[in-house]
Amino acid sequence: MVTRGSVPADQKQIVIVALPDGALDESHFVVVRGPVPQPGAGEIVVRTLLLSIDAANRTWMDVETYRPRLVAGDVMAGYALCEVVDANASVLRVGSIVFCDSGWQEYAAVPATSATVVAADGELTHQISVHGVSGMAAYFGITDIGSVAPGETVVVSAAAGATGHLAGQIARIRGAHVVGITGSDDKNLMLESYLGFDATVNHRSETFDADLKAACPGGVDVYFDNVGGRVLESVLLRMNRQGRVVCCGSMTQRAMDEQSRLAEILPGVLISRRIRMEGFIVLDWMDRWPAASRIMNGWLAEGRLRPLENPYDGLDSAPRALIALLAGENSGKTMVRVSP
Amino acid sequence: MVTRGSVPADQKQIVIVALPDGALDESHFVVVRGPVPQPGAGEIVVRTLLLSIDAANRTWMDVETYRPRLVAGDVMAGYALCEVVDANASVLRVGSIVFCDSGWQEYAAVPATSATVVAADGELTHQISVHGVSGMAAYFGITDIGSVAPGETVVVSAAAGATGHLAGQIARIRGAHVVGITGSDDKNLMLESYLGFDATVNHRSETFDADLKAACPGGVDVYFDNVGGRVLESVLLRMNRQGRVVCCGSMTQRAMDEQSRLAEILPGVLISRRIRMEGFIVLDWMDRWPAASRIMNGWLAEGRLRPLENPYDGLDSAPRALIALLAGENSGKTMVRVSP
Repeated sequence: MVTRGSVPADQKQIVIVALPDGALDESHFVVVRGPVPQPGAGEIVVRTLLLSIDAANRTWMDVETYRPRLVAGDVMAGYALCEVVDANASVLRVGSIVFCDSGWQEYAAVPATSATVVAADGELTHQISVHGVSGMAAYFGITDIGSVAPGETVVVSAAAGATGHLAGQIARIRGAHVVGITGSDDKNLMLESYLGFDATVNHRSETFDADLKAACPGGVDVYFDNVGGRVLESVLLRMNRQGRVVCCGSMTQRAMDEQSRLAEILPGVLISRRIRMEGFIVLDWMDRWPAASRIMNGWLAEGRLRPLENPYDGLDSAPRALIALLAGENSGKTMVRVSP
Repeated sequence: MVTRGSVPADQKQIVIVALPDGALDESHFVVVRGPVPQPGAGEIVVRTLLLSIDAANRTWMDVETYRPRLVAGDVMAGYALCEVVDANASVLRVGSIVFCDSGWQEYAAVPATSATVVAADGELTHQISVHGVSGMAAYFGITDIGSVAPGETVVVSAAAGATGHLAGQIARIRGAHVVGITGSDDKNLMLESYLGFDATVNHRSETFDADLKAACPGGVDVYFDNVGGRVLESVLLRMNRQGRVVCCGSMTQRAMDEQSRLAEILPGVLISRRIRMEGFIVLDWMDRWPAASRIMNGWLAEGRLRPLENPYDGLDSAPRALIALLAGENSGKTMVRVSP
């Protein structure tokens, strides 16, 4: 149990120097020291334990999304598992583990109502992978947006990624034939041999379209899309009637959309094949996270769900972790251990 | 009541000479004389009364859809209101009015199970407009795929078209603020003054994006898309969270997609705004057509729904009618009177 007395006066923070106009590199960030904030009205102070590194971090630098666009001078935004160190008369307890938008810093003041208390049973890292945004996106994307049924063929792109490797496994648990797409034969081997994917395809292969067709002999019923662009286009052209496209992310879209003919095939292919294409933000579903967590804990205990985790050590490594994630170098959930 | 005895031995037919490789013109068709068919097992023979002219006719010449692609030498395909002239021991009666894929010819043999008996109360032309594919697409697109709720803002493209002018009126009946998009100020004036649209925008205007924004001050909740391409892109960027795109047609897509940045904004905009984009084919909903017809008959009787109809005279005019439809020259439902 940490009390306010043990909180230092100043802290390490990672601040945006300039927004990227293209690829992100480490020069866009600077490590600074700043004061540990006092809580304002309705706020708590938290100590950051584990940062969740997500493609969304990059998106927030580019455009207004469900939050205003980030600007130079901001502490880099990011969700994290944190420990409450000053509850400031809220209903939260000092020592509670919460999930909140602390940003890339050791301490943060956040609205008490924006912090979600997590169960913190089992591995703390699982709270960021299976029970965090990535795992919840996989769960609700497959079960609710995708409505995957037994015997259906499900294709997952960025299939070795934080969300994709869980989405594919959850689809298999629901009885689907699951095909993973990545840009790496090594990742594909891992997906098939370690995580039980039925088949995999490398989107960098010159025979990608033919390989995809061979891997999905009965067509595609559900596409869990983490990338957009040319891969989305290829999968759309393999989809069955009444198919569903779960729009979860578009992380590699930039690199791929030069060759994309999406504007030529949309919306025609949606009409002729009666396809539903639906975007979602898993933060909208937080009232159902606890129930989903219980179900996934059952699968973990049975050994049916294997989370891949990729932890970096120290706040300073956060820019490097995000850049590696964006380059597609990582498998599984990328995270940064901030406090030991 | 027509008996088989009054059926002639030969008939006029319109045959595809060559599939178009670009714009359709009258040289792609030829008028021929051919035999009136005898019914095969399970078939009936029908006399064509009113041809429905639809953008789908053109699509069938381009690609495989819910039917195989048409080929040179085929009688041009098309749905029509027809009279049964040889029931061939089916449960249908000679003299019944049915809706079926007779094609562009005076007589056709069609499977009895593919012919839908229509009530044929009221104006026969209404069976092709309000109670036909166009009206049903408007009804189910607005009520079911779009789930339009009172107070929402609904944008309809090709708003003076066969489906669009009904979709807009049905959305208004459901209490929505309705904005029509066409490429003609004359059509827009008609939509506002005669059909009660709340606002209209001309997509050919240089200030289209700004005009659209001004017409939808609260953003767009439902977009009933009949065109795809650049207009789809512009409306997507004005959509509210949880918005729905009803993908009904993509008739003017060819002309517009040169400037389209759809591949850049999709799927990102679907994710950040939680948008559902869904294609449908109204022929899948035929079990619910009778109920929808009853509801629309009520609106017709109350004067709340005004169908626009655009009939051409004589089978020979069918190519001209389709070409005018594709050029956006027509308002309302284009049809061809084949038999007096």
